[in-house]
Amino acid sequence: MKKLILFLLIIIGLPVTSQNTGNDLIHYVNPFIGTQRMGHTFPGATVPFGMVQLSPDTDTVSYELNGSYNPRVYEYCAGYQYDDPTIVGFSHTHFSGTGHSDLGDFLIMPTTEKLQLNPGTANNPESGYRSRFSHENEFAEPNYYSVLLEDYSITAELTTSARVGFHRYTFPENAEVNIILDLMHGIYNYDGKNVWTFVRVENDTLVTGYRQTNGWARTRTVYFAMTFDRPITKYGHKKYDKTVYRGFYRKFNEGENFPEMAGHDIRAYFNFDLDETCELKIKFALSNVSAAGASKNLAAEVPHWDFGKTKREGQQLWNNELSKIRVEMLDNDDSTVFYTALYHSFLSPIIYEDVDGQYRGLDQNIHQSDGFTNYTVFSLWDTYRALHPLFNLVQPCRNRDMVKSMLAHYDQSVHKMLPVWSHYANENWCMIGYHSVSVIADAIAKGIYNENLPKALEACKSTASYPLYDGLNYYLKLGYVPEDKSSNSVSKTLEYAYDDWAIAQIALRVGDLSAYDNFMQRSESYRHVFDPVSGFMRPKLSDGNFREAFDPLDTHGQGFIEGNAWNYGLYIPHDPEKLVKLNGGKAAFAAKLDSLFVLELDDAHIEANEDITRDGIIGLYVHGNEPGHHIPYLYNWTGQPWKTQERVRMIMNTMYANAPDGLCGNDDCGQMSAWYIFSALGFYPVCPGSEEYALGSPKVVSAEVDLGNGKILSIKIENQHRENVFVREVWLNERRIEGYTLNHHDLAKGGMLKFVMSNR
Amino acid sequence: MKKLILFLLIIIGLPVTSQNTGNDLIHYVNPFIGTQRMGHTFPGATVPFGMVQLSPDTDTVSYELNGSYNPRVYEYCAGYQYDDPTIVGFSHTHFSGTGHSDLGDFLIMPTTEKLQLNPGTANNPESGYRSRFSHENEFAEPNYYSVLLEDYSITAELTTSARVGFHRYTFPENAEVNIILDLMHGIYNYDGKNVWTFVRVENDTLVTGYRQTNGWARTRTVYFAMTFDRPITKYGHKKYDKTVYRGFYRKFNEGENFPEMAGHDIRAYFNFDLDETCELKIKFALSNVSAAGASKNLAAEVPHWDFGKTKREGQQLWNNELSKIRVEMLDNDDSTVFYTALYHSFLSPIIYEDVDGQYRGLDQNIHQSDGFTNYTVFSLWDTYRALHPLFNLVQPCRNRDMVKSMLAHYDQSVHKMLPVWSHYANENWCMIGYHSVSVIADAIAKGIYNENLPKALEACKSTASYPLYDGLNYYLKLGYVPEDKSSNSVSKTLEYAYDDWAIAQIALRVGDLSAYDNFMQRSESYRHVFDPVSGFMRPKLSDGNFREAFDPLDTHGQGFIEGNAWNYGLYIPHDPEKLVKLNGGKAAFAAKLDSLFVLELDDAHIEANEDITRDGIIGLYVHGNEPGHHIPYLYNWTGQPWKTQERVRMIMNTMYANAPDGLCGNDDCGQMSAWYIFSALGFYPVCPGSEEYALGSPKVVSAEVDLGNGKILSIKIENQHRENVFVREVWLNERRIEGYTLNHHDLAKGGMLKFVMSNR
Repeated sequence: MKKLILFLLIIIGLPVTSQNTGNDLIHYVNPFIGTQRMGHTFPGATVPFGMVQLSPDTDTVSYELNGSYNPRVYEYCAGYQYDDPTIVGFSHTHFSGTGHSDLGDFLIMPTTEKLQLNPGTANNPESGYRSRFSHENEFAEPNYYSVLLEDYSITAELTTSARVGFHRYTFPENAEVNIILDLMHGIYNYDGKNVWTFVRVENDTLVTGYRQTNGWARTRTVYFAMTFDRPITKYGHKKYDKTVYRGFYRKFNEGENFPEMAGHDIRAYFNFDLDETCELKIKFALSNVSAAGASKNLAAEVPHWDFGKTKREGQQLWNNELSKIRVEMLDNDDSTVFYTALYHSFLSPIIYEDVDGQYRGLDQNIHQSDGFTNYTVFSLWDTYRALHPLFNLVQPCRNRDMVKSMLAHYDQSVHKMLPVWSHYANENWCMIGYHSVSVIADAIAKGIYNENLPKALEACKSTASYPLYDGLNYYLKLGYVPEDKSSNSVSKTLEYAYDDWAIAQIALRVGDLSAYDNFMQRSESYRHVFDPVSGFMRPKLSDGNFREAFDPLDTHGQGFIEGNAWNYGLYIPHDPEKLVKLNGGKAAFAAKLDSLFVLELDDAHIEANEDITRDGIIGLYVHGNEPGHHIPYLYNWTGQPWKTQERVRMIMNTMYANAPDGLCGNDDCGQMSAWYIFSALGFYPVCPGSEEYALGSPKVVSAEVDLGNGKILSIKIENQHRENVFVREVWLNERRIEGYTLNHHDLAKGGMLKFVMSNR
Repeated sequence: MKKLILFLLIIIGLPVTSQNTGNDLIHYVNPFIGTQRMGHTFPGATVPFGMVQLSPDTDTVSYELNGSYNPRVYEYCAGYQYDDPTIVGFSHTHFSGTGHSDLGDFLIMPTTEKLQLNPGTANNPESGYRSRFSHENEFAEPNYYSVLLEDYSITAELTTSARVGFHRYTFPENAEVNIILDLMHGIYNYDGKNVWTFVRVENDTLVTGYRQTNGWARTRTVYFAMTFDRPITKYGHKKYDKTVYRGFYRKFNEGENFPEMAGHDIRAYFNFDLDETCELKIKFALSNVSAAGASKNLAAEVPHWDFGKTKREGQQLWNNELSKIRVEMLDNDDSTVFYTALYHSFLSPIIYEDVDGQYRGLDQNIHQSDGFTNYTVFSLWDTYRALHPLFNLVQPCRNRDMVKSMLAHYDQSVHKMLPVWSHYANENWCMIGYHSVSVIADAIAKGIYNENLPKALEACKSTASYPLYDGLNYYLKLGYVPEDKSSNSVSKTLEYAYDDWAIAQIALRVGDLSAYDNFMQRSESYRHVFDPVSGFMRPKLSDGNFREAFDPLDTHGQGFIEGNAWNYGLYIPHDPEKLVKLNGGKAAFAAKLDSLFVLELDDAHIEANEDITRDGIIGLYVHGNEPGHHIPYLYNWTGQPWKTQERVRMIMNTMYANAPDGLCGNDDCGQMSAWYIFSALGFYPVCPGSEEYALGSPKVVSAEVDLGNGKILSIKIENQHRENVFVREVWLNERRIEGYTLNHHDLAKGGMLKFVMSNR
C-alpha cells in the first residue's frame, strides 16, 4: 500500500509542464490548503456536495474548559489542524471552513493489540487509542485520503460516495485487530452534548444505530449502517454515563457481545480475524432519516467491496464538477489554488436526503423531496455574497434545488422564516440578516429559479417580518435597529436594508408593486445609521440619537460584528452610488478607500477585533471576514477602477496560496474560495440579486466556463502577466464593454469574454 | 356540569331490577375497581385497546429516594391511587394493572389565576399546580371521566378516540386560564429519565412535539399534536435542566411566546380568553411515529369539536366489545364485577400504529403494518395464561393481529426473539420464560392463527435458543437452569419446559418431527428440578446436586419468583397427570392441594415474599400472583373435581369485588380479570396451547358468548345459586360431557353449554 501512496505522491509532485490543466483536474486540488490555522478546511474524502465527509480528526478539544468557553475549540471546526502530531480517528461529518462547528459524527479508529477505549491525549498518545502520524506519510486528493498510523503501523485509506464512507485499513501481519466506534467523539463536544446513542449489531457484519446531539443544532440525529468485509469475532462497549437501564437488562452482560447498546456516552469496539491481505474494509453509510435509510443508502450506492471503484467514481464526479471551469493559469501553484478554491466551493451545501428522497425536515418530521434534491448547511451570511452567485453561473441546477430546499425549510419553519444559518434540520440562528432572500432574488434575477415566484415572495416577506428576530421589531418600527435594544445594530440595519432591496426585486418581478414600494423604502434604512458628522455608519439609540461612545477602528460593542465601521460602514451593496454620495462624492470616497487599504491597525485593535489575524489584513481591510468582500470592487464607482484591479490582484496574490495555511481566514463553506474564483475570472457579484457583476482583474490566462445551460463562456486574457494587473479593454462577443459592469444574461449566452491587460 | 354528573351518578346508582344486563353494558363497568391499593388500574378514559389512556394521576412519586429504589413508586404504576387527596393532572398513557411502569406521557393540568409550573406536593397542594379533589365529585365510566378540581373550581372531563384524548374543562366565570403541559411528568419518573423533549407552537391553536425517555423502555419516543378550540393568547415554558443551547437562541427570549422549545426537562403553559360558556376544549393526539403522524391521527379520528360525539362513539365501541359476552348474574354487583373484568381484559395490548398503519418497530425504524393492526404492551408472563386464551375465544381477529405483531417484533429483534415483556418498540425483558410461544401455540391450536406456521415455528425455535437469555445456555446444556448460575432457576426451568411443550405442538402441526421430538424432550425438563425426597421442585446447582438451603414457604432466593415452592412447584401445566404422579398419586396430590389451601403463612414469610398481601392469599395459595392461577383447577386431575369447583367459587367471591380495592393483586394487563371471566363462565385454560379447558364452577346465571366467527355459545346454568357451587352435570349441545375438560373446537361451533348445579 505504501508503495502506491509514494507513487501517487510522485505523480502529484511532478511539475506540470503545460499550464493548461488537462483532464485529470483532481490533481490540481490540494485538500490541505486551509488546514493550518484559520482556514478550517478538512483534508479527508468526500464527493461534490456529498453528505459524508470522511476525514481525520486530530484532536478532541472540549468546548468548555473549567466551565467556560475554551477558545482552542475554535481551531477544530473542521476537526483537523495541520500542526497536530496525532490523529484521534476518522469521523464522517465535517463542515468546511466554518467558524463554529457541531459535527464529527461516528469516529472510527483502528488499533492493534491492547484495547483502549479512551482517545488519550496528544501529549501522551499511548494513554489512549489515538496514533501519531506524520505529513510525510499522509496523502490527500479529492475523494481519497491516506495516512500511516504510526503507533500501530496501520495504513488508513478513506474514500466515499455521496452517502457512504469507505474505509480500508491495512494492518501489520498477525495483528490483533480492534475497530473502535466512538460515539462520544464529536467536534465542538462537551459533557451532555450527546442526547442519546444507539447501536445494534444486526449480524456478524452489519451494525446500525444513531447519534442524537444537542449542540449548535439543538435537536439533531444522524443514523448509520456500518458493514465489515469479514465477520466480527467479538465485540463490546463501555458506557461512560451514569444512566441506568430500568428495563431488566441486568439479566445480561451488556458489555460484551450483547447486540443492543444504548446510552448517552458509549464507545464500542469490534474484533476481527484478518486473512493474508491484512486488510479490513468498512463501509459506513449515513442517513438523517433512519437506520433503515442508512442501509438503503449503503445498498444503493456501494453494493460491492471494491474500494478502488468507489474512489474512482467519486474522483470522476470531481473531475466533472471541476471541469465546469477549466482554466489556464500562469503557473502550477496558481492552478492548484484555483482548483482547490473550486473544490472548496463545491463541498457545501451538502446533499441532505436519502437515495429515495426522504429527509428529516426542520419540523423533525420526515419529508419527501418532490422534484428536487434537498440540501443542508446554509451558512448564508457568508455564502450569499459569492458562493451562491457562483452556483448560478456554473451550478444552476444545484442552486435551483438549494432555493427549493430553502423554501422547504420555510414551509417547515415554525417561525415562518427562511434559513438564517441552517444545518441538519435545525436553525442555529448564527450571524445576522436574512440572506436567504438574497440567494433567492439572485437565482430569480439570473433566471435560475422561476417556478413559484409568488411563493418565494411570500417566504421572503414573512422572513423579513418576524418580529421576534434579532431587533427586527425595532427595525420595522424605527427604520433601524437601536443599539440599546439589540447589539450589532448597525450591521443588522445595513444588512436588513440590502436584504429588503433584494425582496423588492422579487416583488417587482411578481408584480406586487405595493411590496416593491415597501421594501424599496426599507432598503434605504442605511440612511438612519449614517452619521454625516463623523462620516461613518454609527450606532444609533432608540431615542433617535447616535450613541456618544464610538471607535470606528474597533468592532467590539461598536454596533458591528466581524467588521468595524471602516469596513462594515461601506456596506450598501445595492446602491454604491449612494454610498459614494454619502461619503462626499467620488474623490472623497476613493480617498477613504485608499485610507482603508493603507492605514495600520494597531495591535490593541487587532486584539480587540473578532476573527482577525495579521495575514488577513491589508491596512484596515479585512479579507478574512466577509463584510469587506465587495469593498475592493467599490473603486469602480469612484472613477478609479484601476485601484479595484490592483487591490483585487493583490488580495488574490497575498491571501491565497498553495500551502496548508493558504487561506487567510475561515473558508466559510466556500465563500472565501468563491470570492477567489470570481475574482480570478475577472468579475465579482457586488450586489447579488442584481444581474450585474463588477469588473476586476482576472488572474487566469484563459478559462472555459460551462454555464450548465449547454453554453460555454470562454474567457481569454491578452497580455496576462503577473505585472499586468490593469485591464485596458474588455470585450464580450466582439462588443466592447463600456463602464465597469457585466450583465449576467449577456454572459449566460456564452461566447467569448476577452480582457486586454496592461501594466498600467 | 355538576348537575349532569349527579344525574349520571343517580342513573348508575339505580338498582337494576333485572339481572339481565341489557344493551347499555358500559353502565355495568366500574373503572374504579382496582384503583385502590394493589390493583394498579386507572379510572380514566380509553376505548377498547386504545392507544390513548387519558387518566388522572394522583401523585408523582420519584422512582428513587436518596439514590435508591423508592417502594412507594410501586403504588403508582397506573398513576392513580384511590386514597390520594389530590390530582396532579391528566396524562395520556397508562398501563393497566402492571407491577412496573413507564408511562404518564404529556400531563395536562388546567389552573386559574397565578401560574405555577411546579406540581407541588400532596401535603401542600398550594405549593404547585395540583388540586384537591373528592370522590364525591368524581365520576368514571368507559371512555368518560370527570372530576371537580376543587382548588380551581374547574370541572374536568375526559374522553378519547383510539389515538386522541379529548379534554373539556369548564372554568369559573372570568377566570384567568392556564393550561399546563408538563413534559417532565411521568410515571416511574426519575432525574434523567427524559432524554429529550420538543415542543412547537405551530400556530395559535396547534402545538406539536415529542417526549423521548430512557426508562423501562430504554429508547422510547411518543409524539403528540395538541389543538385548542380557541386561540392561545400567550404561552411560554421553563426549562429545569442545565443544557445550554449552543445555537444562537440567545437572540430570543425563549421563555415567552417563542414557538420552539426543547430540552430535557421543560414545562410549558398556554393562556386563553374564554367566552361565556367558560369552556376550553383540547384534543391531544398521540403517535409513535412522528408529530406529523399525530396530526394525521387527530384529523382522521376527531375532525370536530363535539366532545359528546367522541364520548358516545367510544362508548358504543365499548358496548360492542362488552357485548361479546352478555351475562345474567345473580346480582348487580356481580354484573359489575364481571363487566369490569371484561373491560379490564380489553384494555391491552394496545393499538400501536398510526391511522395509516405506520409504527415504530423494535429496531427503531418506521414500519408499515401489512394486513394487520399492530399492537404493543405484551406482559406475556402474565397474559399468556388466560388473557390471550380469552381473546382466542371472543377476540379472535385481534389475537391473530397480536400474534402477527409478535412475529413482526421477532423480525425486528436483533436477538431474534419473540417478545418477553414488550412495550412501545422496546423489549424490557421483565419476568421470565418465553411465553410468546404459548400465545402463538394457543392461537394455532385453536385455529385462530394459521397463516405462516413454518415462520411461527422458526420464530419460536429461535427464541428458545438464544443462549444469552436468562440461563438458557445452561438449560440447553444441562436440561435445567442451575441456581448458582442464574437466579429464579426453578421457575425458569419449569416455564421453559412448558414453553417447549408449546413449541412442540407447533412443530407437530408444521410436520417438523425432529423439532417436535426435541421440544417434547425439553418439555420434560421439570424432572431435573423435582426433588423426590422433599416432594418439592427445588433449586439445583450446576454440579447436579440440589442446593442444601431450601425453604419451600419462602420465595426470596429459593429459586422462584413471585411464588414459593408450594405454589410454583405445581407448575407442569402441560402434563398435570405427571405432576400428580410426581407427587405420589391422586390422593397424595389432592392432600397436598388441601394443605396448600389451608396452611397458614406466618407473618415473616408474608413479609419475605414478593407482591403478596393477606387479601390475595387463601392458606398458602396466592391468587394475587400468576403462577398459581391454574392451581385450583388441578383437583380435576385428582378425582376430586368438587374441590376445584368450591375453590374457584371461593376465589371469585373473595378476591373480586365491586369496590376500589376489589382486585387482590395487580390486574397485570387483564390477566387477573381474564381469570375471572373464564372462571365465571365455568371453564379455564389450564394449558394454553392445548385445545382443552378445565371445568370449574360457573358464577354466571347465563351467558351468550359471541365467538367472533358468526357463532354464539350460549351458556345456561341450572340451579344457579350462591350455595350451589358444585357442578352435577355438564351438557354441550345435548351431549353430556364426561370427564372434566371441554374442547375449544367443540365450543367454537357454538350452541348450548349447560351446567347443572347443586349444593353437593
